Amino acid sequence: MTSVDPGDFGILDGISEVIATTRSESGIPNAAPIGIIRSPISDQICVRLFSGSHTRQNVIETGEIVANIIHDPVMYVESTFGDLDLDVFEYPDNMDCPVLKRANAWLLFECEQSKGNLFELTPVRGMVRDRPLVCVNRGFSAVIESLVHATRYQLKRDPGYLDLIGHYDRIVQICGGTREKEAILKLKKIMGGLS
Amino acid sequence: MTSVDPGDFGILDGISEVIATTRSESGIPNAAPIGIIRSPISDQICVRLFSGSHTRQNVIETGEIVANIIHDPVMYVESTFGDLDLDVFEYPDNMDCPVLKRANAWLLFECEQSKGNLFELTPVRGMVRDRPLVCVNRGFSAVIESLVHATRYQLKRDPGYLDLIGHYDRIVQICGGTREKEAILKLKKIMGGLS
Repeated sequence: MTSVDPGDFGILDGISEVIATTRSESGIPNAAPIGIIRSPISDQICVRLFSGSHTRQNVIETGEIVANIIHDPVMYVESTFGDLDLDVFEYPDNMDCPVLKRANAWLLFECEQSKGNLFELTPVRGMVRDRPLVCVNRGFSAVIESLVHATRYQLKRDPGYLDLIGHYDRIVQICGGTREKEAILKLKKIMGGLS
Repeated sequence: MTSVDPGDFGILDGISEVIATTRSESGIPNAAPIGIIRSPISDQICVRLFSGSHTRQNVIETGEIVANIIHDPVMYVESTFGDLDLDVFEYPDNMDCPVLKRANAWLLFECEQSKGNLFELTPVRGMVRDRPLVCVNRGFSAVIESLVHATRYQLKRDPGYLDLIGHYDRIVQICGGTREKEAILKLKKIMGGLS
């Protein structure tokens, strides 16, 4: 039995959007945003991982996944679309599974496929590195919403998603800080390459 | 000169959506969401306060405003639309200006009208009570976006804003936790009373 409480890491009921880090059987690290689903009734924790994703493949191979708690919008964009540089990862205490160097906190889960795309998560161990106070920034939220629409656009190529990204871009320009503006610019460049 | 750094309170460049607490000349406390604007170039901090708001009236009367850093979506809804119960406020060290009891941190500013609706903020003193780790929750962001549209609906009565709230309600039902669902339910009841 473990005494790690995901609530101490900010993983409350509802869906927490974190950056997952995993590794392939051969040891190649990967990072990608995932939504950790915590039920308010059963208190069970799970995640939906879709076919074709590195995260799903790695989890099937190794049974492990790390949730990285981080508030950098650029990191969300980069991990959605590409393989990050190897130097963003580290392996605390010789852990097999990588974590993000710049995460405020990380939590390692055992991860077992339950049915279909659903995987059950059991917390194993974690570390809190720092606890910055974070204010609500509508620009940050707009980057996250844009990423949701961008991944849907990748699948369906419906230009309606591009209009939605345009809407959120305007919010970023008004409400975002330097990092949010850098993040949405990077996203728009990637989307330009896709269309 | 003060040594209080708003960045330590999560007030970075861009617009930070916090809950402002103020008091009237006669001592009546008020709470309402505001957007604290911090420029990345001049590092100046200011806020736009519109005519007719208690916050603006109180700031003109007393020259003080407190930024409360808090992540409870219900508190954002309640402070947008109504006068909160008196017992949500407290006065640390006999400060004149109230703060929210349940805020993770608060920061007192001197507040001076610069031109039109723009008020300049100078940090005076603050306190950090706790530093919970907070994960990104799209349901929380959806409550905040709904509040923006709800206040616009109050002014313009354009039913398009109600459709947008419906859109964000669906995100809350999928991604939000118990507090986000309670918050959007409260908002929908208030909007029902408005229309």
